[in-house]
Amino acid sequence: MIKNFIYLDHAAATPVDRRVFDVMLPYFSGLFYNPSSPYFPAVQVRRDYDNAKKTLANLIGGKQDEIIITAGATESINLVFNSVSGHVVVSNIEHHAVLNCAKKCPHTIVLVDGRGIIQVEVIAAAITPKTQLISVALANNELGTIQPVRDIAEIVKKERMDRLKNGNKMPIYLHVDASQGVGQLNVNVARLGADLLTLNSGKIYGPKQVGLLWAASFVKLNPQIIGGGQERGIRSGTENVAGVIGFAKALELAVDHQSFEQKRLATLRDYMQNNLIKAFPEAVISGSQKNRLAGHLHISFPGIDGERLLFILEDRGVLVATGSACAANKGTKSHVLEAISISDEIANGSIRITLGCLSNEKNTRQACKIIISELKKEYERLRK
Amino acid sequence: MIKNFIYLDHAAATPVDRRVFDVMLPYFSGLFYNPSSPYFPAVQVRRDYDNAKKTLANLIGGKQDEIIITAGATESINLVFNSVSGHVVVSNIEHHAVLNCAKKCPHTIVLVDGRGIIQVEVIAAAITPKTQLISVALANNELGTIQPVRDIAEIVKKERMDRLKNGNKMPIYLHVDASQGVGQLNVNVARLGADLLTLNSGKIYGPKQVGLLWAASFVKLNPQIIGGGQERGIRSGTENVAGVIGFAKALELAVDHQSFEQKRLATLRDYMQNNLIKAFPEAVISGSQKNRLAGHLHISFPGIDGERLLFILEDRGVLVATGSACAANKGTKSHVLEAISISDEIANGSIRITLGCLSNEKNTRQACKIIISELKKEYERLRK
Repeated sequence: MIKNFIYLDHAAATPVDRRVFDVMLPYFSGLFYNPSSPYFPAVQVRRDYDNAKKTLANLIGGKQDEIIITAGATESINLVFNSVSGHVVVSNIEHHAVLNCAKKCPHTIVLVDGRGIIQVEVIAAAITPKTQLISVALANNELGTIQPVRDIAEIVKKERMDRLKNGNKMPIYLHVDASQGVGQLNVNVARLGADLLTLNSGKIYGPKQVGLLWAASFVKLNPQIIGGGQERGIRSGTENVAGVIGFAKALELAVDHQSFEQKRLATLRDYMQNNLIKAFPEAVISGSQKNRLAGHLHISFPGIDGERLLFILEDRGVLVATGSACAANKGTKSHVLEAISISDEIANGSIRITLGCLSNEKNTRQACKIIISELKKEYERLRK
Repeated sequence: MIKNFIYLDHAAATPVDRRVFDVMLPYFSGLFYNPSSPYFPAVQVRRDYDNAKKTLANLIGGKQDEIIITAGATESINLVFNSVSGHVVVSNIEHHAVLNCAKKCPHTIVLVDGRGIIQVEVIAAAITPKTQLISVALANNELGTIQPVRDIAEIVKKERMDRLKNGNKMPIYLHVDASQGVGQLNVNVARLGADLLTLNSGKIYGPKQVGLLWAASFVKLNPQIIGGGQERGIRSGTENVAGVIGFAKALELAVDHQSFEQKRLATLRDYMQNNLIKAFPEAVISGSQKNRLAGHLHISFPGIDGERLLFILEDRGVLVATGSACAANKGTKSHVLEAISISDEIANGSIRITLGCLSNEKNTRQACKIIISELKKEYERLRK
């Protein structure tokens, strides 16, 4: 039933790594106890849970009690915006979760440049004395474009100092959604200069519906889901022990293999890109080619129907995306492609290829060959 | 390292059933696709996800599009209260999630009787023309007391009819938290007369951090977590496919085995209760003995320190609870025991025994013997 697909859509979902699954396994059956129960086997589960949180914290350079476990990046993002009442600044290529949350606050949506890069000076200009939050994704999920987060952090720090001098008591925070690219980029919070950081387990070969929000100790979070008082009262509900143990292992593997994987994927992606461009010199690469996730390739073939191409490729066993998976099956033009002002023709002819763990030299070459041959047939068909 | 414990705390947490785990398994690796992706393998995952939701809906007598998947009962409860702006009525033995949510609205907290039963006429008296929500647990997690939900539903229906006649446009809903007891009681929404129903997978041998809110189609829910628009826009975030597939299987098993399991557990529980009462005639059973979950026994031994007893029993390999697991390790008197006005002495000497899937005749007999022998030693020690 299930063909041996070549999966080129790692930004949409990732399989759970075998090593991740293995560490989760005991918590489904033998170690199923409620971590809030007082007897020893439950205390042991609590300890394992806390250790996993400690691991997560260490891996991003934070402290265990600065981590709130959530059901994924979307919940983390909602928790951030639920905790601010002031003005917020976001870019026009953020994830729908960020854009929809921002629209519920006084907000400014800044425009990215043609490569999908947020301009630091545009952010600076958008900050008012009432700005409480700036929220940016470390890397865009459609284009793979990496944002100048450290430079934005400098702006935020400068604003904070100015407010201290001027007696403006409104706090200002930088939230970084690092859901995309955590396996390929350094996500140390001090290095990024973030005050809040969102991570998603389901994007890094961990279980789905697990995520975290890291918040520096000076950030005041408003509880979003209240009840038994778990996660320091910020996020109630019986803890997802198996999920968090798996998430910690997944992040550990991602960080461990980051620089190796980054090089490996960039090589495969460059092979793919160069061959596609060679075969179709009219093809357009969108997003920054310099500041881009290693496994990411957003490419458009003018005149081609990207969605049709996707299904043709699927039929040949190659799975790619058009735009982001969230918006992909809703038939509307991606807001990210709108934001970088590419023409409808280019937008319609675009596919997103994201390489990852399941990619290797052999299947990348093979996929490349299939894409080229199918595109040739499509262009042939169109010429008739 | 892990002893062969006799687990008598099924109300706090349950292991994932092997059959549940087996159906979840493929969705961690082979079928890991994002259900929003457009290619066939992802569409197949979407179909499996939707079918699991359909199964969940069918099992409670609802429709698939009336089900919102959440990260558990606490989130479901928050979603209910987040959707109302009017007056709410809850009892004083509800879960902290309900009590804490209710306190954020105009609210009336009605008192239960000495058996922990909600009095229908007290609910009726608490309803004002501005009441929008009545929220009760089908069965209390500490006492196991089953509430007269159908009678409360009658009151709500009558009030709804009266409002229709009087031109009062405020809607009124009955929310039933059926997290406890779904494996032992009928949870058909029409039978219960509920307008909203919360279920929790982690209490019925399903995976943790999965739950649902069923809402009748005329109930308007306010999105609590916004983003990519999943779950009809009410609850965004990439779907927990493995979790929901597992939850559906767990509910199927719970409903299938309900009447058998109810009888089996009642027999074991009665054996336990009768033997403990025979050995310690001064022991006090709290909660209703008539309307009680089959596997539930809340028993107090005057003069005994329940927490000390718990650790002594743990040392002998028997795991019981004092009060509910949520509050158990916080050193405060349970609000449920406060509500039924039992003395401090009785409260302090209480343990909660909840039988379930892991219970059988042999280990129940053995546990009973151990509890009796340890209690005798404790009373001996106290007499000296």
